[in-house]
Amino acid sequence: MNTRTELESVGEIALIQRISQGFAATSHAETVRGIGDDAAVIDTGGPDYGLISTDMLLEGVHFDLAYSPLKHLGFKAVAVNVSDIAAMNGTPLQITVSIALSNRFSVEAVEELYSGIKAACEAYRVDLIGGDTTSSRSGLVISVTVFGKVAKDKITYRNTAKPNDVVCVTGDLGAAFLGLQLLEREKQVYMANPNMQPEISEDKSYVLERQLRPSARTDIVYELQDLGVVPAAMIDVSDGLASELMHICTQSGTGAVIFDENIPIDDVSYLVATELNLSPLTAALNGGEDYELLFTIRPHEFEKLKNHARITPIGYLTDKPDSILLGTKAGQYTPIKAQGWKHF
Amino acid sequence: MNTRTELESVGEIALIQRISQGFAATSHAETVRGIGDDAAVIDTGGPDYGLISTDMLLEGVHFDLAYSPLKHLGFKAVAVNVSDIAAMNGTPLQITVSIALSNRFSVEAVEELYSGIKAACEAYRVDLIGGDTTSSRSGLVISVTVFGKVAKDKITYRNTAKPNDVVCVTGDLGAAFLGLQLLEREKQVYMANPNMQPEISEDKSYVLERQLRPSARTDIVYELQDLGVVPAAMIDVSDGLASELMHICTQSGTGAVIFDENIPIDDVSYLVATELNLSPLTAALNGGEDYELLFTIRPHEFEKLKNHARITPIGYLTDKPDSILLGTKAGQYTPIKAQGWKHF
Repeated sequence: MNTRTELESVGEIALIQRISQGFAATSHAETVRGIGDDAAVIDTGGPDYGLISTDMLLEGVHFDLAYSPLKHLGFKAVAVNVSDIAAMNGTPLQITVSIALSNRFSVEAVEELYSGIKAACEAYRVDLIGGDTTSSRSGLVISVTVFGKVAKDKITYRNTAKPNDVVCVTGDLGAAFLGLQLLEREKQVYMANPNMQPEISEDKSYVLERQLRPSARTDIVYELQDLGVVPAAMIDVSDGLASELMHICTQSGTGAVIFDENIPIDDVSYLVATELNLSPLTAALNGGEDYELLFTIRPHEFEKLKNHARITPIGYLTDKPDSILLGTKAGQYTPIKAQGWKHF
Repeated sequence: MNTRTELESVGEIALIQRISQGFAATSHAETVRGIGDDAAVIDTGGPDYGLISTDMLLEGVHFDLAYSPLKHLGFKAVAVNVSDIAAMNGTPLQITVSIALSNRFSVEAVEELYSGIKAACEAYRVDLIGGDTTSSRSGLVISVTVFGKVAKDKITYRNTAKPNDVVCVTGDLGAAFLGLQLLEREKQVYMANPNMQPEISEDKSYVLERQLRPSARTDIVYELQDLGVVPAAMIDVSDGLASELMHICTQSGTGAVIFDENIPIDDVSYLVATELNLSPLTAALNGGEDYELLFTIRPHEFEKLKNHARITPIGYLTDKPDSILLGTKAGQYTPIKAQGWKHF
């Protein structure tokens, strides 16, 4: 080939679009939805739709073994996949786990990793049904694929939001990113002076746990079901609120207004952000890895959720595509730009 | 932890057994079969069973980009997964593909890889429905998960063979291993003297194609269906005939006798084996990566297959567990040991 285009010059989203074009057509009636949502959707001929999602984690890219305990890492690898099933309003059922290991791992280390995978299987009630174990010339690689199901009338896509929908988010945002910054800082301290043990006080453990051992919000899926609410659109917050909201708006052809004072941020996140001289709001908007659920509901449904302790309304959708605004108490509106997530 | 057990001291099979123990129980009625066969089996509530299998390929471990064209590699990554669905007597439907890439790949190289993935999707009629694209600090990683289906009364496991079953194999064996040896030799020649271009004559291209761009035997699955034959047990030949036959025998509680003169080996494989001073029989028994199907059928069913050009009967099963014998024309019987496949 004569042309050489660098990956950096294209970026992940454009690369995926470029590749996906060749695969736009699907040949099986069983394939309900392919690339483009949190999970692919399959019609198996049974009463429910099947859901499939996959995520690969690489050492040095997605995690740093200097501060990621293997047990937590195993848990996280499962949880981030389960989160994609939750984002379709579905229930996880099974996972496959493939790992590539170098010789520097001991059998005990591998068992530690799998003890975390097992803990997640128990927490989310999923069966480990297969995988692949192989050697690696370099770092640890963990590739997980998750299978789930969802009733056909309960499935929630990204592209089905409408103007006037209420935008809601679960839990709180920004903590996982702040946890990562704290861990990176301590790593630098330790590398500069190996005799100084990293010390992170107990009161900051919340942000560390959010980074190292995130939870998937399957609890919310069950609670929405109990409340008789089917979200209009949903996505999980893996890359930051701004980016995920943009996905919903772009795919649904809507705009959005959200309000800064409504964005849920934990007290510990404020504390850590101050210490690190970072904006907690920026962490919430662009930080990522919170694995909360961002969803919209029709205005008349909002009544059913308004007293829910772990669901916060943060704004509404508009009929102005490409206009995603952050409003302040003072009445100022600023366009939000998704920082996205640079891969290359 | 105080104990450190090296991975090398345990080996892949024992490691998987050690890990699997913790996951023996499955919690969902939907999980029909987990770890232990070519694919996991799921009851989706539809008329067919769902099948799931996954394989991860790493640069430097499973392939060498010095001689693996990216297009072939993309094809192979899909084919080896489809082969696992064929080994359950199933039909592939969908795949997810996750890749990790370093900066040294150009966009054109990624497109070349995906053109092979697409060619395989078309050849096996599978839909690409999702995946993950990420950066890698070191080599290329490709993780594929395949989904398929099989009629409940046609599913073929490894552990359902019986004494007196006829042992059959499709196509020919040993070629993929010999192709790899040829490529490795040429690479050494080239590395010793970069001015000397590797040259592999046209008449040996068969073994190269078997190594670089193997086919999954979905054709056989359809033909068996047309002939009205459901194999008693089946497995795909990824690790060599000896190892795969041992899996069927161990899991079914049988022994086996196969005959050296019946093992199908292509003329080109004989040619290349002679040139490389290797035994073609050893290549067939222990070489691996042929992705043919090894299956057994009940004796009374054999009549239906005996004139099939691409299916060769190579022996029969016995009621002597742990006794897997290779017979010669001269009437000598030698126990076969599976060399297995060392991962660490």
